[in-house]
Amino acid sequence: MKNPLRGVRALVFDVFGTVVDWRGSLIAEGRRLGRAKRIDVDWAAFADAWRAGYRPAMARVRSGALGWTSIDALHRMILDELLERFAIRGLSEAEIEHLNRVWHRLKPWPDARAGLRRLKRDVVIATLSNGNVALLTNMAKFAGLPWDCILSAELFNHYKPDPETYLGAARLLGCAPQEVMMVAAHKDDLRAARACGLRTGFVARPLEYGPGMRVDRRPEKDFDINARDFNDLAAKLARARA
Amino acid sequence: MKNPLRGVRALVFDVFGTVVDWRGSLIAEGRRLGRAKRIDVDWAAFADAWRAGYRPAMARVRSGALGWTSIDALHRMILDELLERFAIRGLSEAEIEHLNRVWHRLKPWPDARAGLRRLKRDVVIATLSNGNVALLTNMAKFAGLPWDCILSAELFNHYKPDPETYLGAARLLGCAPQEVMMVAAHKDDLRAARACGLRTGFVARPLEYGPGMRVDRRPEKDFDINARDFNDLAAKLARARA
Repeated sequence: MKNPLRGVRALVFDVFGTVVDWRGSLIAEGRRLGRAKRIDVDWAAFADAWRAGYRPAMARVRSGALGWTSIDALHRMILDELLERFAIRGLSEAEIEHLNRVWHRLKPWPDARAGLRRLKRDVVIATLSNGNVALLTNMAKFAGLPWDCILSAELFNHYKPDPETYLGAARLLGCAPQEVMMVAAHKDDLRAARACGLRTGFVARPLEYGPGMRVDRRPEKDFDINARDFNDLAAKLARARA
Repeated sequence: MKNPLRGVRALVFDVFGTVVDWRGSLIAEGRRLGRAKRIDVDWAAFADAWRAGYRPAMARVRSGALGWTSIDALHRMILDELLERFAIRGLSEAEIEHLNRVWHRLKPWPDARAGLRRLKRDVVIATLSNGNVALLTNMAKFAGLPWDCILSAELFNHYKPDPETYLGAARLLGCAPQEVMMVAAHKDDLRAARACGLRTGFVARPLEYGPGMRVDRRPEKDFDINARDFNDLAAKLARARA
C-alpha cells in the first residue's frame, strides 16, 4: 500500500505552544516591564492567568454568545481584568496596548526556525492558528519564522477546533484534506483535524506550561507522526516520503 | 507637516505584471511545451489571449453574473476556449491542468526579489492580488518571493478594484488604511486603493505587454511615490521616512 504521507503537500501549524513559547516570552516581558515601572507582580501567575482566560473567551465566540472577535481583542478584554486583579496601575493606554501585543512578540522554541526551514524545502508550511493575521504576521517577522503563508481562524470567522478552520485551510491551499498535515502539541487540535480528514503530526512540548508541569506527551498511534521537535518531525516526514 | 509616509507600516503588492512577468513566463513555458509535444503555436498571441480573457471573466464575478470563482478556475475556463481556438490537441487532462498552473510558476522581474528583501526590513510586505491564495503561495515558493503574508481577493470574495479588497487587507494587517501602501504597475488599481484611503506607490513596468508596446509609465502627482522599479521604490520610501 502506498504510504499516505507521500501525498502530503502542505503542513499547517498550531502556533501558541507548538511553535512559540508563549509562557516564557510573557514572563520575560512582564519582568522587564516590572523593573522599568517598579511593579511587583508574580509574572508567571500573570502569564498563566492570561492564557487561562483564552479558552473561555473563544468559547463565547464559538457558541455565538459573542460576535466574531479577534484574538487581539479577546486578549485585551482578559488583560483589562488582569490589570485589576494583579493591581497593576499607572500604565498609559499606549503601554497597555503595547503589553497586549506581547503576543505578537513570542519567541520560538529552540528547534522551530531550523525545523521549519528544513520542512519548507519539501512542502508548503503555513500557520493555522487562532491568532489573527496581523498577530501571526508580526510574530513571524519578529521571530524569523519562514512561513510560506499565514492562515488564521480569522479568515474563516471560526475558531479551532471548528471544522471550518481545517477544511478552510486545505481549500485555500488548493489541497484535499488528506494532502494537508496539521502539526500541534495539543491532541484535541489534532483529533479535530483528523476528523476532517487531515493528516496529523504531534510534537511534544513538555515545557509549554512551565518546568515541572505534567503535560501529555505520549505518542498516539492514531497520529501519522509523533515527534520530539520540528527537526525530528522533518526527519520522520522525509523518511515516510522517501 | 509630518510626512504621511512615516506612518506607513505595510506595503501590499499587485502581483501579475507588477512583481512577475506573466507574459514572458507564459511564452517561455508555451514554447517548451510546443517543442515537447510538437505543437506549433504563436505562444505570444496565446499568452496575450489568455490574459485578455481575465478581465471579462472577473467582471462576470464582480457583477454577480457568476458566483465566486477563483482565478485558477477562471484561468481554466479561458484556457479550455483557447485550446480550441489555437487548435492545441493531444494534451491529457493532467497536462492541461499543469499548463493552467503556469500562473503559479511566473518569474519575477529582475529587481523584484532584491527590492522586496530590502523593503521587508522596514515594513510588512504582502501580496494583494486577484490570484488565489494557493496560486500566490506556490508562486512565492517557486520564485523566491519573501512575502510576510499572502493576501488575496479570495479572502474577501471580491476582486480588485472592489473596495472590500483594499479595506480588507488593511483590516487583516491590523492597520488603518493610511498606514498601508498599495504598490502596482496599474493606475486603475492605485486609484481604487487611493479612494479607500491607502497610500500609493506606482512602479512602471514598460515590458509587461512585451517589447515595443505602449504602456502608460508617466509619474502621477496623485501617487505618493512613483518609482522605476522595486529598488527605486525602497530607496524613495526610505528617504521619505527618514
